[in-house]
Amino acid sequence: MKFIEGGVCAPKGFTANGILCGIKKGRTKNDIALIESEVPCTAAAVFTKNLVKAEPLKLTRKHLADGTAQAVVANAGNANACTGAEGYENALRTARAAAKYLGLAETDVVVCSTGVIGQQINIGAIEAGMENLCDGLSKEGNVAAREAIMTTDTKYKEAAVQVEIGGRTVTLGTMAKGSGMIHINMGTMLGFITTDCAISSKMLDAALHESIEKTYNCVSVDGDTSTNDTLSVLANGLAGNKMITSKNADYAVFLSALDALNVAMAKKIAADGEGADHLIECTVTGAKDEATARNLAKSVISSSLVKAAFFGKDANWGRILCAMGYSGELFKPEGTSVFFKSGAGEIEVFHKGVPLSFDEAKARIVLTEGEVAIRVELEDGKGSGTAWGCDLTYDYVKINGDYRT
Amino acid sequence: MKFIEGGVCAPKGFTANGILCGIKKGRTKNDIALIESEVPCTAAAVFTKNLVKAEPLKLTRKHLADGTAQAVVANAGNANACTGAEGYENALRTARAAAKYLGLAETDVVVCSTGVIGQQINIGAIEAGMENLCDGLSKEGNVAAREAIMTTDTKYKEAAVQVEIGGRTVTLGTMAKGSGMIHINMGTMLGFITTDCAISSKMLDAALHESIEKTYNCVSVDGDTSTNDTLSVLANGLAGNKMITSKNADYAVFLSALDALNVAMAKKIAADGEGADHLIECTVTGAKDEATARNLAKSVISSSLVKAAFFGKDANWGRILCAMGYSGELFKPEGTSVFFKSGAGEIEVFHKGVPLSFDEAKARIVLTEGEVAIRVELEDGKGSGTAWGCDLTYDYVKINGDYRT
Repeated sequence: MKFIEGGVCAPKGFTANGILCGIKKGRTKNDIALIESEVPCTAAAVFTKNLVKAEPLKLTRKHLADGTAQAVVANAGNANACTGAEGYENALRTARAAAKYLGLAETDVVVCSTGVIGQQINIGAIEAGMENLCDGLSKEGNVAAREAIMTTDTKYKEAAVQVEIGGRTVTLGTMAKGSGMIHINMGTMLGFITTDCAISSKMLDAALHESIEKTYNCVSVDGDTSTNDTLSVLANGLAGNKMITSKNADYAVFLSALDALNVAMAKKIAADGEGADHLIECTVTGAKDEATARNLAKSVISSSLVKAAFFGKDANWGRILCAMGYSGELFKPEGTSVFFKSGAGEIEVFHKGVPLSFDEAKARIVLTEGEVAIRVELEDGKGSGTAWGCDLTYDYVKINGDYRT
Repeated sequence: MKFIEGGVCAPKGFTANGILCGIKKGRTKNDIALIESEVPCTAAAVFTKNLVKAEPLKLTRKHLADGTAQAVVANAGNANACTGAEGYENALRTARAAAKYLGLAETDVVVCSTGVIGQQINIGAIEAGMENLCDGLSKEGNVAAREAIMTTDTKYKEAAVQVEIGGRTVTLGTMAKGSGMIHINMGTMLGFITTDCAISSKMLDAALHESIEKTYNCVSVDGDTSTNDTLSVLANGLAGNKMITSKNADYAVFLSALDALNVAMAKKIAADGEGADHLIECTVTGAKDEATARNLAKSVISSSLVKAAFFGKDANWGRILCAMGYSGELFKPEGTSVFFKSGAGEIEVFHKGVPLSFDEAKARIVLTEGEVAIRVELEDGKGSGTAWGCDLTYDYVKINGDYRT
């Protein structure tokens, strides 16, 4: 398996584009992205578990009911959530406009939005820009597209990976956005995966669900599960591998590539969490089972107090134990050990239930690095799991204290 | 029912004291508090649901197993949590020292601690100070005691209330601490209630459990449920009312007084949340049932994004809908209306599922007040509930970025 350049355009047959059509006053970055496959794709998606679902998400769920799609339109600047019937109609008009210029059925267009909740989207700007957006599709269009989905993101997020399946080179590409309102539960803010793998929509859906549990769903920036979370995958089959229709060895290779891609993106999203100074990775080993380990790790990286301590480079491990304790999962505190780790070294602070008197100066050096890891060893079983988050900083408060205006 | 002065010393037969014994280096406030009743009390307590429980909490649970107690010792500066067998022994030595100077059985002493997790407590300082602490008990000692349990609290928190029960005046008094690591689940950081009501330990326990569900358990500062949460109540019977032994009319009056006391304290804790500029009260009406209403309100006041928006005086109601959506409770978004309210007026921002174009300048004026309310009207039933929280500020990050040092 190797990581390559090209993002969503890396797999065969996919092109993309992004332009600034004017959805939000004052925005100078591109605000609408398009991805198209030259041939029809099997497709799958996962959506937010938030009861309040954005209008484009309701539309996309319908469009993907048949397991096929060929294009994705995604915009930043407006989430088109809590906008009622008018909002749904606007999502539909977006799909319809793209379908018209691409010569596709509107039901083969996936629509996603991100931005402010509760304002009607500027559908006029979208319809007026659609022809340009479609005309500009190219193999290098991932660059324009990845920018068009950024909101408070400070970095674009894309990745691509290649594996061999049945003697053929299969490529997976992705782009995503996500910086705040992130406590992922079924998808991320917005993520798009393209692949030239030949795989049935049923197996694609299975792989996507299997993968997100240990990747995207293990990321939290602020404990807030968005109304718009969507992660979609389009597979156009152009790699020429034998169609994957069951959970065979080829499926396993595809899943491992999907996992690698999603982990890479999960870390990018956590590292670029709103206001973040540090990427925090928490790995729990020795838990009762995998789900327990993951939930413990998620509780740790979700704690405001743990996050604030990392901002202060403070080795306040008591808050880690506290967060594990209220996770709802069972573990033996008296068998628990805690380590901090980074490029600057590793330090144990709690050993089998007993506080250690550790070198505070060394701990501070370990915690000064941009990427820091918490390692928790339990004595309850063989389950392990990892979650990703970031520190809580003044800038998070600043960004979110005045987001709309 | 009327609120009076005197805190935990307001009910007949209770005295208190607080001194600085030197538990934490550099602390200049009192650090250890004592409450005593002149006669034995029926007693009850509720504790944190955090799996990781502080050592004094384990001890107190044993001591209250028989439903009686006569004194409470509580310290700030050290939580005595994650401290193993040595920590438990230190909690026991604290109870023993108090019992010796008060002439009580050690099992009639409740012990509570609050402060840093994971460091052994300075038991030498506690034992050395105990004689002075006991000697100084007085009817005005609530003033010294309420200070001795403060950590990052900027204000002491106490209240007292009087009601008539069976022709007798019954008084309830309380003090509490709590500012950070607050997402109450069964008790608060530390809360102590005294009363001269004659009530069986069984009815006292029932009333306490009934009351906290709609008071203390509806407060969140930062989503972190502490390892030390304890709320205890001691009833010495000196009011001379007929002993309450069933859920009769007298029980109902006692419960209403207990609710009033606990709501007053819940609001004080939320308003003094770490770094808080605003007390946020969220009331949900028209929900399926009471529990649903409360859980929706709790989800709203717990959201980092909602909290940051209030800091910025930003009427970002979309985040309120979002937080209700991921609460796990069912409601009809299309029947939902949202209002902001304060001393400066009220403004509707979302009406039966449709965004209103409201006066942003007026909304900002409403949100500038120190106490602001969110009112959510649903169309699902008759359940209503309230929760209390505070805004997320730079100061919260500052306080928790460097708490230990």
